[in-house]
Amino acid sequence: MTGTLPAADPTDTRAQFRAGLALPSSGWAPGFTQANLVVLPREWAYDMLLFGQRNPQPVPLLDVTDAGSVRTALAPGADLRTDLPRYRVWRDGALVDEPTDVVDLWSEDLVAFLIGCSFSFETALLDAGVPVRNIEQGRNVSMYRTNRACRPAGRLSGPLVVSMRPVPGHLVPTAVQVTGRMPQVHGAPVHVGSPSSLGIADLSRPDFGDPVEFDEGDVPVFWACGVTPQAALMASRPPFAITHAPGFMFVTDVPDAVYRQL
Amino acid sequence: MTGTLPAADPTDTRAQFRAGLALPSSGWAPGFTQANLVVLPREWAYDMLLFGQRNPQPVPLLDVTDAGSVRTALAPGADLRTDLPRYRVWRDGALVDEPTDVVDLWSEDLVAFLIGCSFSFETALLDAGVPVRNIEQGRNVSMYRTNRACRPAGRLSGPLVVSMRPVPGHLVPTAVQVTGRMPQVHGAPVHVGSPSSLGIADLSRPDFGDPVEFDEGDVPVFWACGVTPQAALMASRPPFAITHAPGFMFVTDVPDAVYRQL
Repeated sequence: MTGTLPAADPTDTRAQFRAGLALPSSGWAPGFTQANLVVLPREWAYDMLLFGQRNPQPVPLLDVTDAGSVRTALAPGADLRTDLPRYRVWRDGALVDEPTDVVDLWSEDLVAFLIGCSFSFETALLDAGVPVRNIEQGRNVSMYRTNRACRPAGRLSGPLVVSMRPVPGHLVPTAVQVTGRMPQVHGAPVHVGSPSSLGIADLSRPDFGDPVEFDEGDVPVFWACGVTPQAALMASRPPFAITHAPGFMFVTDVPDAVYRQL
Repeated sequence: MTGTLPAADPTDTRAQFRAGLALPSSGWAPGFTQANLVVLPREWAYDMLLFGQRNPQPVPLLDVTDAGSVRTALAPGADLRTDLPRYRVWRDGALVDEPTDVVDLWSEDLVAFLIGCSFSFETALLDAGVPVRNIEQGRNVSMYRTNRACRPAGRLSGPLVVSMRPVPGHLVPTAVQVTGRMPQVHGAPVHVGSPSSLGIADLSRPDFGDPVEFDEGDVPVFWACGVTPQAALMASRPPFAITHAPGFMFVTDVPDAVYRQL
């Protein structure tokens, strides 16, 4: 499938993924919001919903489905069982499969959570003239476990996970203002400039993703990260869960601009 | 108790209400956020939490307690059973009592929802030079059922309820911008200027609250209203519920400024 050109339209994008194309979704349907997916048995849904309410920066819930439904208000024509390019299947906290659809695994007992993703604010940063080093370097963003605990919710608890982007010092205020206007996709940074006070010993050794190089004068800026709920879920070991595979997101019909405020 | 001076401090305010003082909370602890209260059996909590997620403008959830707990993160020293000036008790959708505490009614099975309130944005409007006619006239704000349905969640459904404030035409943009920066306390208006398109036939006959007089040049501006979840609950008739009595709110330790964005 190498060489497939990304589709510009969300419907076309999802149709290709539904047909089995398994590529990372970055660059597909530019300008439309992409979302993290977490699917859980109904018996775990209350804890997840409460975890999102209590930790809105790392877990901005864009939509929650009715139990058993494969439909989301974020893309009325989509089928959540087939329209992501790749899924992960978890049993008792362990990764057991990475299929391109989950039709055979779906049941009336499942609730799907669609969670905001930093792809939306990276576009906004670029539009505002803030360079995004991980994009320039063709790497995944660097992500770290911190020493800050999320507010627990029932059986779910865990550390705040952050993503880090190097930002030129004179553009840090712009980066704060631009992302602060997008609270539904993680919002303003949670920290600027001092990794050690978040418990991060070495920026060149991220817990997830790739190391990203700093230019002269760049300062590390930390945002709450959508890996946080996955980290909490995997620590809490629900009997069954489905998520997207990292980088293989759900492409919605919602323009990024909808999540930009005033 | 007529003539009691409102306390300036949230702790003092709650201590007086805890001791039995039963006055409306408007004017008490100015500058601190006041919240609507809804308390439900655990078996109804998921539907309420989902109703809030799906309808964030009328139901901005500021905090949700652990089942059985009388504590909230919004005011760590407070006791939710005693610290509101007056409560309402509902059985099968009918109002059965209006006590000044609910100590005898509390149980391990109850979950409390603290919901943002327009008192916070009325202060912000006044600070920005926008007159608030209901305050000038010493009346409760006018509230109306609309022809817009909320997104249902499980057993909970109902119409959007709005509050209406007359705003001088040249200050409507300011009112939109000021409240748009406060999404956790209902945010920007949902409609401006055309009551009939919301299904409101006569502004002088509100469904809740008092009629409010217009000055020459005032335009009706409509915001999503915290009465919406109560309307949905009463229509859905849960076996048991506790709420605040209208106007007798929960006074938190959170400064209003925390809910004002950039």
